[in-house]
Amino acid sequence: MAATEITIEPGRHDIVITRVFDAPKERVFRAFTDPELFKRWNGPSGYDTVLDRWEAESGGTWRYVSRGEQGEFGFRGVFHDVVPNERIVQTFEFEGMPGHVCLETATFEEVDGRTRYTGVSVFQSVEDRDGMAASGMESGVNDGFDKLDELLREQ
Amino acid sequence: MAATEITIEPGRHDIVITRVFDAPKERVFRAFTDPELFKRWNGPSGYDTVLDRWEAESGGTWRYVSRGEQGEFGFRGVFHDVVPNERIVQTFEFEGMPGHVCLETATFEEVDGRTRYTGVSVFQSVEDRDGMAASGMESGVNDGFDKLDELLREQ
Repeated sequence: MAATEITIEPGRHDIVITRVFDAPKERVFRAFTDPELFKRWNGPSGYDTVLDRWEAESGGTWRYVSRGEQGEFGFRGVFHDVVPNERIVQTFEFEGMPGHVCLETATFEEVDGRTRYTGVSVFQSVEDRDGMAASGMESGVNDGFDKLDELLREQ
Repeated sequence: MAATEITIEPGRHDIVITRVFDAPKERVFRAFTDPELFKRWNGPSGYDTVLDRWEAESGGTWRYVSRGEQGEFGFRGVFHDVVPNERIVQTFEFEGMPGHVCLETATFEEVDGRTRYTGVSVFQSVEDRDGMAASGMESGVNDGFDKLDELLREQ
Protein backbone atom coordinates (compact mmCIF):
# COMPACT_ATOMS: atom_id res chain seq x y z
CA MET A 1 0.00 0.00 0.00
CA ALA A 2 2.26 2.84 1.16
CA ALA A 3 5.35 3.39 -0.93
CA THR A 4 8.82 2.83 0.43
CA GLU A 5 10.95 5.96 0.73
CA ILE A 6 14.66 5.41 0.34
CA THR A 7 16.99 8.34 1.02
CA ILE A 8 20.58 8.15 -0.24
CA GLU A 9 22.30 11.53 -0.18
CA PRO A 10 25.65 11.98 -1.94
CA GLY A 11 28.79 11.74 0.18
CA ARG A 12 27.15 10.28 3.27
CA HIS A 13 27.55 6.95 5.11
CA ASP A 14 23.86 6.17 5.48
CA ILE A 15 20.78 4.85 3.75
CA VAL A 16 17.44 5.72 5.34
CA ILE A 17 14.34 3.69 4.49
CA THR A 18 10.82 4.45 5.66
CA ARG A 19 7.53 2.67 5.06
CA VAL A 20 4.11 2.70 6.67
CA PHE A 21 2.46 -0.68 7.33
CA ASP A 22 -1.25 -1.06 7.91
CA ALA A 23 -1.00 -2.96 11.19
CA PRO A 24 -0.24 -2.23 14.86
CA LYS A 25 3.43 -2.18 15.75
CA GLU A 26 3.26 -5.39 17.80
CA ARG A 27 2.39 -7.28 14.62
CA VAL A 28 4.99 -5.51 12.49
CA PHE A 29 7.69 -6.08 15.11
CA ARG A 30 6.75 -9.76 15.33
CA ALA A 31 7.11 -10.07 11.56
CA PHE A 32 10.67 -8.70 11.85
CA THR A 33 11.71 -11.02 14.69
CA ASP A 34 9.70 -14.27 14.57
CA PRO A 35 11.72 -16.62 12.35
CA GLU A 36 8.69 -18.26 10.75
CA LEU A 37 7.25 -14.87 9.77
CA PHE A 38 10.54 -13.17 8.84
CA LYS A 39 11.51 -15.81 6.32
CA ARG A 40 8.15 -15.48 4.56
CA TRP A 41 8.68 -11.87 3.48
CA ASN A 42 12.42 -11.11 3.58
CA GLY A 43 14.30 -10.58 0.32
CA PRO A 44 13.58 -10.09 -3.37
CA SER A 45 10.84 -11.87 -5.29
CA GLY A 46 11.95 -15.26 -6.57
CA TYR A 47 14.22 -15.86 -3.60
CA ASP A 48 13.64 -18.00 -0.53
CA THR A 49 15.14 -17.07 2.82
CA VAL A 50 16.67 -20.12 4.50
CA LEU A 51 17.43 -19.31 8.14
CA ASP A 52 20.61 -20.86 9.45
CA ARG A 53 20.63 -19.06 12.84
CA TRP A 54 18.08 -16.56 14.10
CA GLU A 55 18.48 -15.48 17.72
CA ALA A 56 16.40 -12.29 17.64
CA GLU A 57 17.35 -11.00 21.07
CA SER A 58 20.01 -8.64 22.40
CA GLY A 59 23.40 -10.36 22.04
CA GLY A 60 22.07 -13.00 19.63
CA THR A 61 23.55 -13.90 16.26
CA TRP A 62 21.84 -14.47 12.93
CA ARG A 63 22.61 -15.92 9.50
CA TYR A 64 20.47 -16.69 6.49
CA VAL A 65 20.89 -17.75 2.91
CA SER A 66 18.88 -16.11 0.16
CA ARG A 67 18.31 -18.83 -2.45
CA GLY A 68 16.99 -18.16 -5.93
CA GLU A 69 17.54 -18.33 -9.68
CA GLN A 70 20.89 -16.61 -9.58
CA GLY A 71 22.31 -18.75 -6.78
CA GLU A 72 22.72 -18.66 -3.02
CA PHE A 73 23.80 -15.58 -1.09
CA GLY A 74 24.69 -15.67 2.60
CA PHE A 75 24.15 -12.82 5.07
CA ARG A 76 25.06 -12.71 8.75
CA GLY A 77 25.39 -10.48 11.80
CA VAL A 78 24.72 -9.96 15.48
CA PHE A 79 21.82 -8.34 17.30
CA HIS A 80 23.07 -5.51 19.51
CA ASP A 81 19.58 -4.70 20.80
CA VAL A 82 16.15 -6.15 20.30
CA VAL A 83 13.68 -3.98 22.26
CA PRO A 84 10.17 -5.46 21.89
CA ASN A 85 7.87 -3.40 19.65
CA GLU A 86 10.34 -0.49 19.60
CA ARG A 87 13.75 -1.05 18.10
CA ILE A 88 16.18 -3.53 16.56
CA VAL A 89 19.90 -2.68 16.25
CA GLN A 90 21.99 -5.25 14.40
CA THR A 91 25.07 -5.67 12.25
CA PHE A 92 24.71 -6.84 8.64
CA GLU A 93 27.29 -8.39 6.33
CA PHE A 94 26.94 -9.91 2.87
CA GLU A 95 29.24 -12.93 2.88
CA GLY A 96 30.14 -12.27 -0.75
CA MET A 97 31.97 -9.13 0.42
CA PRO A 98 33.56 -10.23 3.68
CA GLY A 99 34.80 -7.51 6.00
CA HIS A 100 32.24 -4.96 4.80
CA VAL A 101 29.75 -4.55 7.61
CA CYS A 102 26.95 -2.10 8.27
CA LEU A 103 24.95 -1.19 11.35
CA GLU A 104 21.18 -1.29 10.91
CA THR A 105 18.70 0.40 13.23
CA ALA A 106 15.01 -0.35 12.78
CA THR A 107 12.44 1.66 14.74
CA PHE A 108 8.68 1.15 14.87
CA GLU A 109 6.25 3.98 15.65
CA GLU A 110 2.50 3.52 15.78
CA VAL A 111 0.20 6.23 14.44
CA ASP A 112 -3.58 5.60 14.38
CA GLY A 113 -3.22 1.83 14.24
CA ARG A 114 -0.63 1.91 11.50
CA THR A 115 3.12 1.48 11.96
CA ARG A 116 5.82 3.70 10.57
CA TYR A 117 9.04 1.73 10.09
CA THR A 118 12.34 3.62 9.81
CA GLY A 119 15.49 1.75 8.91
CA VAL A 120 18.85 3.52 9.14
CA SER A 121 21.89 1.69 7.77
CA VAL A 122 25.32 3.20 8.35
CA PHE A 123 28.30 1.80 6.47
CA GLN A 124 32.03 1.75 7.28
CA SER A 125 32.69 4.05 4.33
CA VAL A 126 30.83 6.17 1.79
CA GLU A 127 32.15 3.78 -0.89
CA ASP A 128 30.55 0.81 0.86
CA ARG A 129 27.30 2.73 1.11
CA ASP A 130 27.43 3.60 -2.60
CA GLY A 131 28.17 -0.03 -3.45
CA MET A 132 25.10 -1.19 -1.53
CA ALA A 133 22.97 1.48 -3.22
CA ALA A 134 24.12 0.23 -6.63
CA SER A 135 23.54 -3.45 -5.81
CA GLY A 136 19.83 -3.61 -6.57
CA MET A 137 19.06 -3.31 -2.87
CA GLU A 138 16.15 -1.00 -3.62
CA SER A 139 14.07 -3.54 -5.54
CA GLY A 140 14.88 -6.21 -2.95
CA VAL A 141 13.58 -3.98 -0.18
CA ASN A 142 10.42 -3.10 -2.13
CA ASP A 143 9.72 -6.74 -3.01
CA GLY A 144 10.19 -7.77 0.61
CA PHE A 145 7.95 -5.04 1.99
CA ASP A 146 5.23 -5.88 -0.56
CA LYS A 147 5.33 -9.46 0.72
CA LEU A 148 5.19 -8.14 4.28
CA ASP A 149 2.07 -6.09 3.39
CA GLU A 150 0.42 -9.29 2.18
CA LEU A 151 1.45 -11.18 5.30
CA LEU A 152 0.04 -8.41 7.51
CA ARG A 153 -3.29 -8.56 5.65
CA GLU A 154 -3.77 -12.14 6.89
CA GLN A 155 -5.98 -12.81 9.94
CA MET B 1 55.67 7.29 21.33
CA ALA B 2 53.80 7.94 18.06
CA ALA B 3 51.00 10.47 18.27
CA THR B 4 47.39 9.51 17.80
CA GLU B 5 45.72 10.99 14.73
CA ILE B 6 42.01 11.60 15.07
CA THR B 7 40.07 12.66 11.98
CA ILE B 8 36.62 14.20 12.43
CA GLU B 9 35.40 15.93 9.27
CA PRO B 10 32.32 18.16 9.41
CA GLY B 11 29.01 16.65 8.36
CA ARG B 12 30.15 13.03 8.33
CA HIS B 13 29.12 9.96 10.34
CA ASP B 14 32.61 8.75 11.18
CA ILE B 15 35.61 9.23 13.43
CA VAL B 16 38.89 7.75 12.21
CA ILE B 17 41.73 7.13 14.66
CA THR B 18 45.22 5.94 13.74
CA ARG B 19 48.25 5.21 15.88
CA VAL B 20 51.49 3.30 15.40
CA PHE B 21 52.57 0.96 18.20
CA ASP B 22 56.13 -0.27 18.57
CA ALA B 23 55.33 -3.99 18.68
CA PRO B 24 54.38 -6.75 16.23
CA LYS B 25 50.69 -6.99 15.45
CA GLU B 26 50.22 -10.28 17.32
CA ARG B 27 51.08 -8.49 20.56
CA VAL B 28 48.95 -5.44 19.79
CA PHE B 29 46.00 -7.61 18.81
CA ARG B 30 46.37 -9.62 22.02
CA ALA B 31 46.29 -6.39 24.05
CA PHE B 32 42.95 -5.53 22.39
CA THR B 33 41.35 -8.93 23.01
CA ASP B 34 42.88 -10.60 26.08
CA PRO B 35 40.73 -9.44 29.02
CA GLU B 36 43.65 -9.22 31.48
CA LEU B 37 45.63 -7.01 29.07
CA PHE B 38 42.70 -4.95 27.76
CA LYS B 39 41.56 -3.81 31.18
CA ARG B 40 45.08 -2.59 32.00
CA TRP B 41 45.16 0.08 29.29
CA ASN B 42 41.58 0.88 28.27
CA GLY B 43 40.09 4.27 29.15
CA PRO B 44 41.17 7.60 30.55
CA SER B 45 43.80 8.10 33.25
CA GLY B 46 42.33 7.82 36.73
CA TYR B 47 39.74 5.26 35.65
CA ASP B 48 39.75 1.51 36.14
CA THR B 49 38.12 -0.79 33.63
CA VAL B 50 36.03 -3.44 35.36
CA LEU B 51 35.07 -6.15 32.88
CA ASP B 52 31.62 -7.56 33.33
CA ARG B 53 31.56 -9.70 30.15
CA TRP B 54 34.32 -10.03 27.57
CA GLU B 55 33.78 -12.67 24.89
CA ALA B 56 36.29 -11.42 22.33
CA GLU B 57 35.24 -13.71 19.48
CA SER B 58 32.85 -13.42 16.54
CA GLY B 59 29.30 -13.41 17.95
CA GLY B 60 30.44 -12.69 21.50
CA THR B 61 29.15 -9.93 23.75
CA TRP B 62 31.03 -7.50 25.97
CA ARG B 63 30.33 -5.06 28.79
CA TYR B 64 32.59 -3.08 31.08
CA VAL B 65 32.33 -0.35 33.67
CA SER B 66 34.80 2.52 33.71
CA ARG B 67 35.19 3.47 37.36
CA GLY B 68 36.89 6.67 38.53
CA GLU B 69 36.65 9.93 40.42
CA GLN B 70 33.56 11.11 38.57
CA GLY B 71 31.63 7.89 38.98
CA GLU B 72 30.92 4.69 37.10
CA PHE B 73 30.13 4.55 33.40
CA GLY B 74 28.92 1.42 31.64
CA PHE B 75 29.65 0.46 28.05
CA ARG B 76 28.45 -2.59 26.12
CA GLY B 77 28.21 -4.19 22.71
CA VAL B 78 28.62 -7.27 20.57
CA PHE B 79 31.55 -8.55 18.53
CA HIS B 80 30.52 -9.02 14.90
CA ASP B 81 33.98 -10.28 13.87
CA VAL B 82 37.19 -11.00 15.70
CA VAL B 83 39.78 -12.08 13.09
CA PRO B 84 43.05 -12.92 14.87
CA ASN B 85 45.80 -10.34 14.30
CA GLU B 86 43.80 -8.61 11.56
CA ARG B 87 40.47 -7.07 12.46
CA ILE B 88 37.86 -6.50 15.15
CA VAL B 89 34.35 -5.32 14.24
CA GLN B 90 32.07 -4.56 17.17
CA THR B 91 29.16 -2.44 18.29
CA PHE B 92 29.67 0.13 21.06
CA GLU B 93 27.10 1.83 23.28
CA PHE B 94 27.51 4.14 26.28
CA GLU B 95 24.81 3.06 28.72
CA GLY B 96 24.33 6.69 29.77
CA MET B 97 22.87 7.36 26.31
CA PRO B 98 20.87 4.22 25.59
CA GLY B 99 19.83 3.60 22.00
CA HIS B 100 22.83 5.45 20.56
CA VAL B 101 25.10 2.82 19.08
CA CYS B 102 28.17 2.97 16.87
CA LEU B 103 29.99 0.38 14.78
CA GLU B 104 33.74 0.19 15.40
CA THR B 105 36.21 -1.42 13.04
CA ALA B 106 39.79 -1.90 14.24
CA THR B 107 42.45 -3.06 11.78
CA PHE B 108 46.07 -3.95 12.49
CA GLU B 109 48.79 -3.68 9.84
CA GLU B 110 52.41 -4.55 10.52
CA VAL B 111 55.18 -2.46 8.97
CA ASP B 112 58.80 -3.23 9.89
CA GLY B 113 57.94 -4.78 13.23
CA ARG B 114 55.61 -1.97 14.21
CA THR B 115 51.84 -2.03 14.05
CA ARG B 116 49.60 0.57 12.53
CA TYR B 117 46.20 0.57 14.20
CA THR B 118 43.25 2.14 12.39
CA GLY B 119 39.94 2.52 14.17
CA VAL B 120 36.87 3.61 12.22
CA SER B 121 33.73 4.40 14.21
CA VAL B 122 30.52 5.08 12.32
CA PHE B 123 27.53 6.51 14.17
CA GLN B 124 23.79 6.30 13.50
CA SER B 125 23.70 10.04 12.82
CA VAL B 126 26.05 12.97 12.32
CA GLU B 127 24.63 14.43 15.57
CA ASP B 128 25.65 11.30 17.49
CA ARG B 129 29.10 11.51 15.97
CA ASP B 130 29.41 15.17 16.94
CA GLY B 131 28.24 14.36 20.47
CA MET B 132 30.94 11.72 20.85
CA ALA B 133 33.57 14.11 19.49
CA ALA B 134 32.53 16.71 22.09
CA SER B 135 32.52 14.22 24.99
CA GLY B 136 36.21 14.29 25.80
CA MET B 137 36.69 11.06 23.88
CA GLU B 138 39.97 12.37 22.44
CA SER B 139 41.82 12.60 25.75
CA GLY B 140 40.41 9.23 26.82
CA VAL B 141 41.78 7.63 23.66
CA ASN B 142 45.16 9.29 24.09
CA ASP B 143 45.42 8.29 27.76
CA GLY B 144 44.51 4.72 26.91
CA PHE B 145 47.00 4.43 24.07
CA ASP B 146 49.77 5.90 26.24
CA LYS B 147 49.06 3.15 28.78
CA LEU B 148 49.07 0.62 25.95
CA ASP B 149 52.50 1.88 24.83
CA GLU B 150 53.77 1.22 28.37
CA LEU B 151 52.23 -2.22 28.46
CA LEU B 152 53.84 -3.10 25.10
CA ARG B 153 57.25 -2.01 26.41
CA GLU B 154 57.11 -4.80 29.02
CA GLN B 155 58.89 -8.14 28.33
